[in-house]
Amino acid sequence: MTTTPLHDPTSRGFASDNYAGVHPEVLEALARANGGHQIAYGEDVYTARLQEVLRDHFGAQAEAFPVFNGTGANVVGLQSMLPRWGAVVCASTAHIHTDENAAPERVAGLKLLTVPTPDGKLTPDLIDVEAWGWGDEHRAQPLAVSITQTTELGTAYSVDEITAIAEHAHSLGMKLHLDGSRISNAAASLGAPLRAFTTDAGVDVVSLGGTKNGLLYGEAVVVLNPETVAGIPFLRKLDMQLASKMRFVSAQLIALYEGDLWLESASHANAMAARLRSAVEGLPGVTLTQATQSNAVFAIVPAGVADRLRESFRFYDWNPATGEVRWMCAFDTTPDDIDAFAAALRRELEAVAPA
Amino acid sequence: MTTTPLHDPTSRGFASDNYAGVHPEVLEALARANGGHQIAYGEDVYTARLQEVLRDHFGAQAEAFPVFNGTGANVVGLQSMLPRWGAVVCASTAHIHTDENAAPERVAGLKLLTVPTPDGKLTPDLIDVEAWGWGDEHRAQPLAVSITQTTELGTAYSVDEITAIAEHAHSLGMKLHLDGSRISNAAASLGAPLRAFTTDAGVDVVSLGGTKNGLLYGEAVVVLNPETVAGIPFLRKLDMQLASKMRFVSAQLIALYEGDLWLESASHANAMAARLRSAVEGLPGVTLTQATQSNAVFAIVPAGVADRLRESFRFYDWNPATGEVRWMCAFDTTPDDIDAFAAALRRELEAVAPA
Amino acid sequence: MTTTPLHDPTSRGFASDNYAGVHPEVLEALARANGGHQIAYGEDVYTARLQEVLRDHFGAQAEAFPVFNGTGANVVGLQSMLPRWGAVVCASTAHIHTDENAAPERVAGLKLLTVPTPDGKLTPDLIDVEAWGWGDEHRAQPLAVSITQTTELGTAYSVDEITAIAEHAHSLGMKLHLDGSRISNAAASLGAPLRAFTTDAGVDVVSLGGTKNGLLYGEAVVVLNPETVAGIPFLRKLDMQLASKMRFVSAQLIALYEGDLWLESASHANAMAARLRSAVEGLPGVTLTQATQSNAVFAIVPAGVADRLRESFRFYDWNPATGEVRWMCAFDTTPDDIDAFAAALRRELEAVAPA
Amino acid sequence: MTTTPLHDPTSRGFASDNYAGVHPEVLEALARANGGHQIAYGEDVYTARLQEVLRDHFGAQAEAFPVFNGTGANVVGLQSMLPRWGAVVCASTAHIHTDENAAPERVAGLKLLTVPTPDGKLTPDLIDVEAWGWGDEHRAQPLAVSITQTTELGTAYSVDEITAIAEHAHSLGMKLHLDGSRISNAAASLGAPLRAFTTDAGVDVVSLGGTKNGLLYGEAVVVLNPETVAGIPFLRKLDMQLASKMRFVSAQLIALYEGDLWLESASHANAMAARLRSAVEGLPGVTLTQATQSNAVFAIVPAGVADRLRESFRFYDWNPATGEVRWMCAFDTTPDDIDAFAAALRRELEAVAPA
Repeated sequence: MTTTPLHDPTSRGFASDNYAGVHPEVLEALARANGGHQIAYGEDVYTARLQEVLRDHFGAQAEAFPVFNGTGANVVGLQSMLPRWGAVVCASTAHIHTDENAAPERVAGLKLLTVPTPDGKLTPDLIDVEAWGWGDEHRAQPLAVSITQTTELGTAYSVDEITAIAEHAHSLGMKLHLDGSRISNAAASLGAPLRAFTTDAGVDVVSLGGTKNGLLYGEAVVVLNPETVAGIPFLRKLDMQLASKMRFVSAQLIALYEGDLWLESASHANAMAARLRSAVEGLPGVTLTQATQSNAVFAIVPAGVADRLRESFRFYDWNPATGEVRWMCAFDTTPDDIDAFAAALRRELEAVAPA
Repeated sequence: MTTTPLHDPTSRGFASDNYAGVHPEVLEALARANGGHQIAYGEDVYTARLQEVLRDHFGAQAEAFPVFNGTGANVVGLQSMLPRWGAVVCASTAHIHTDENAAPERVAGLKLLTVPTPDGKLTPDLIDVEAWGWGDEHRAQPLAVSITQTTELGTAYSVDEITAIAEHAHSLGMKLHLDGSRISNAAASLGAPLRAFTTDAGVDVVSLGGTKNGLLYGEAVVVLNPETVAGIPFLRKLDMQLASKMRFVSAQLIALYEGDLWLESASHANAMAARLRSAVEGLPGVTLTQATQSNAVFAIVPAGVADRLRESFRFYDWNPATGEVRWMCAFDTTPDDIDAFAAALRRELEAVAPA
Repeated sequence: MTTTPLHDPTSRGFASDNYAGVHPEVLEALARANGGHQIAYGEDVYTARLQEVLRDHFGAQAEAFPVFNGTGANVVGLQSMLPRWGAVVCASTAHIHTDENAAPERVAGLKLLTVPTPDGKLTPDLIDVEAWGWGDEHRAQPLAVSITQTTELGTAYSVDEITAIAEHAHSLGMKLHLDGSRISNAAASLGAPLRAFTTDAGVDVVSLGGTKNGLLYGEAVVVLNPETVAGIPFLRKLDMQLASKMRFVSAQLIALYEGDLWLESASHANAMAARLRSAVEGLPGVTLTQATQSNAVFAIVPAGVADRLRESFRFYDWNPATGEVRWMCAFDTTPDDIDAFAAALRRELEAVAPA
Repeated sequence: MTTTPLHDPTSRGFASDNYAGVHPEVLEALARANGGHQIAYGEDVYTARLQEVLRDHFGAQAEAFPVFNGTGANVVGLQSMLPRWGAVVCASTAHIHTDENAAPERVAGLKLLTVPTPDGKLTPDLIDVEAWGWGDEHRAQPLAVSITQTTELGTAYSVDEITAIAEHAHSLGMKLHLDGSRISNAAASLGAPLRAFTTDAGVDVVSLGGTKNGLLYGEAVVVLNPETVAGIPFLRKLDMQLASKMRFVSAQLIALYEGDLWLESASHANAMAARLRSAVEGLPGVTLTQATQSNAVFAIVPAGVADRLRESFRFYDWNPATGEVRWMCAFDTTPDDIDAFAAALRRELEAVAPA
């Protein structure tokens, strides 16, 4: 039997917040939820309690449907919002377009109508690029908008920006979905409660993140406007997102959202990204390409630097053509991690262009 | 913050093995796999180690693809085995037909060709009821057989029975899939190693169970014959079954299958079902309807008895028309649980038909 | 350029009514509808006129959506009636189950719940075999019944039988679809107008046949109860059943249904089948296996007889295991065709069992 | 019975080539193919003859699968070329993206990766915008390129341009599909035989047009490289594109492609577009926006002019934001039609801006 870890529990990089493990409080919550029998598939007391916890965040009409992962939350949520002839307007950088191997199309039968953006953020004008043609049977019908908060480029929509999008979408008869895989980072960045930029801003359905903020696994489709969805219990099952031992998904989400763990972890990850940005901003050869409004820093570094740096710290290329890379912080990133990484970057930069 | 369990950790029933929680060794394994960063989506050391663990069971050619749940394992596995025009011959009681809200059809685009059976078990002759029509473009092409081990009726195929099915299927150019949601209970029942009735019997792909035998969540598609599948990494992603923090799925499966935990837990659950059968067999008004070859007992009880019994012990009706019920034991069922339940049953029986 | 037929226009068999060609009046109608420009995709005057023609048959609320073929009509119709989690209860002999290569499952994402029947006809009791489990997220939700009139076994539901099915389905919250690929043969057989066993009997949506009764191609989804469908124009397009030059589909359907051509052709085909039945009933070795209520005769003939007969007249085996064959008449079958076929059958029977 | 046309057979506009009717030679071919019985679903002599006719065009290895319509040809063809995880790189103006209500996504489960182009034409460089990420399970795998010839903007790829695309696609392991809804117009424009820019240029699969060039209905998937496809007979059936009376689809395609009808009709339509371009080029307020290389003219006209013109001649807006319109000619457009239209346009232009 393996009784020691197979891995080095002190090694951390900047590849993704889902390279991190589980917050200790979450593991404790799993242990507390263990033992005895609980009704499977969501009729357990933890899933019931989760409803209360999330209503405190999103309002009394909110209803949460725990699922396994973020792609699952997006697909179940969007599928519940749209008829079989529906299309979704989204940014061309949206995770649903770039990173889900077309699950929205293949599993949910949806069409994505994508719009290029400078910073990952849609606007009413950008939505209008694809929001047209209602009633034309030849065109997939644009009946929902999906935004990501924070975006795949690390930027955050302001409350006003989301409100404007919601008003515009609704005025066109379209619904508004928010992919909140990193919704806690957005709240931390905006200094606003979750409902300020969701329920109160007019968002209809949220994919509520958990995994990237310290859970083992587990997200939730949170319906803010019940009139905009249909059949989620059935869709969650047929989309293979219904956990039998759902108490353990719900217990984790309770651990995250009942108190301040969601906010503390996200604030910390954001702060680490800010520390990283400060440390590298202005270094010769380094161009920061996006605002740092959450837990990610996007930068262009000189050819070769990224690869050598990666021998010690894992992270991803974002755009190989331009040399843009993404450095992502997590709930467990430490100030020392940042400082060591920045120091290594400085060394590599000096090696290619000595002062 | 919730610091005490919301539920009674000493309460257990006979509804399902997925009403049970997590085995303590599994929780410990999760803690050991925690900390530090590990590559997401399956390139972690735990998923690598899992390959070794499962090759010890299934042979050197086996490859495992962890997924979230059993429906996911079945759908990804079957989809990888079949072209878009494929159909699957299965028993009419098969989980893929009765309990997955048509995920195989709706997500994977497969057709199920179902055959009634007396005991949940296909045979070569029963397969032939639907195995015909190859080359006829009007007919969904029967290119795979799917069997469940143990079956949804608690019965177990013998090694010879599966061998005969595999030979027959292969002789017809069909592949053989085994839904092993309760595969450990089958091994315990047969007193045979896992490979005896899978790899060595000619099975091509297994859905390897975990959740019903003490995991939080987590199953795996285990490919025994690599020539029978295509594209599983892509299919797992687009079917929304790719866990980002896969190390935790793999660590659980390692905890289960590296040593004897899988067999001990399953043997115990089987023994509890045998104890229950012994306790109720011959009671007036009780008719046992299936052989008890795993962790479930199927019985017909007099009208009213089931409902009164359920006031204290949760379990499911199997066939409301006949009064047939299912009593399922789990890894955590105790002898005292059985004895208390049997005593309660005797009391209720006497109440309706005093001796 | 080919200026003579490539085939023998005087050769006819008993394989299928879609081996026949086009009724001359239909060809004339195509020529009349030709010339000039007409709005594509259904906004033409012929499609408008078709609405009037079919409302005369099915009532003022009826709306017709021309499509290319019968599978298309069934899939578009059923998909418009059911949510993504829906299932359809049908006979195990239904064309949608046996002859559409799972298009209802693969394209429309529906589940078929099939019930064996002696004669291809469902009843309220047979429907109940699969009509249960509403609200259970694990089960594909049985929300529609589909019947075929006339059935794939050549039998016809009576008006009362369909009325009883409709009442039963509706009382369960289920909708009723009728696959009317041979609906004209049913009307001829029953001596009843089309609406007697559709609109007036409670059918919600009909797949109205054309091709098997003398059209080149062309069927229609006819909605009798508009409250039971949604989105047909969109579904017809995305299901690839929207003809650009729809005027020609509609002109054919007008030619068929405006006057009595539909009834004359179907009555003739039925009469030919009756003539065939009379000619072969009682012949030694011939067992008629179904009532002859339309244009097909089902019979078991001695081993070898079918194959020798097929050297001169094409027809299909229905059940190779029993020697059952299907002989199908068409609008262009002649009395001489029947007499020649019956004479040949008698010769072959005498060859195997001399009087 | 309707014995006169319901429409004016002398009225023609510029809306679309599918507003036109059927070429008289095609109607004659239908009559010749009528009578007697022919095996349904493609085993008839006309479909066999069609193979020979199309092999004369496309080479000895070509195989044709007649279908109902262009969307059907595209979906069946692309689905046969790609695994379930496949994606198709195409121009953002491609019919498969803009006009098929997402049938490729919803029915075939494909992802479209779209690239903006100035003139509807892809190039190797434009393909590279989306042709990357092979092996990354998160990304829909770009395994085919689809081009339209002539394009939706009326432009034609040269032989060299298609050859370069084919070489580039193949060098990346991608297949090449050509949507040839207006393939005859391309051949007429290029003065090249069909095979010069298909088989000989490296195209793998063609959607061969018929309807827009004078058929009632009917297109064909023509496989030029048999190694690039799988399962078309099954896919055609399950995609609901299998005509029962296929002899009539094939007879039409024979009438079109056996002699020169395809080329004569397309050349005529192209010539009419050229005549129209000449007549309007240089008119004050008229800006021609695309090269006129087939049967369509794209132009921007002053506000209000299009709407008044449409009171007499039907045509479509192409881009309401810029005032761009499309004028499409057909096989039956006459020089007088062009002259009358051009005269009307001049009148309207003078009304808004008197000379």
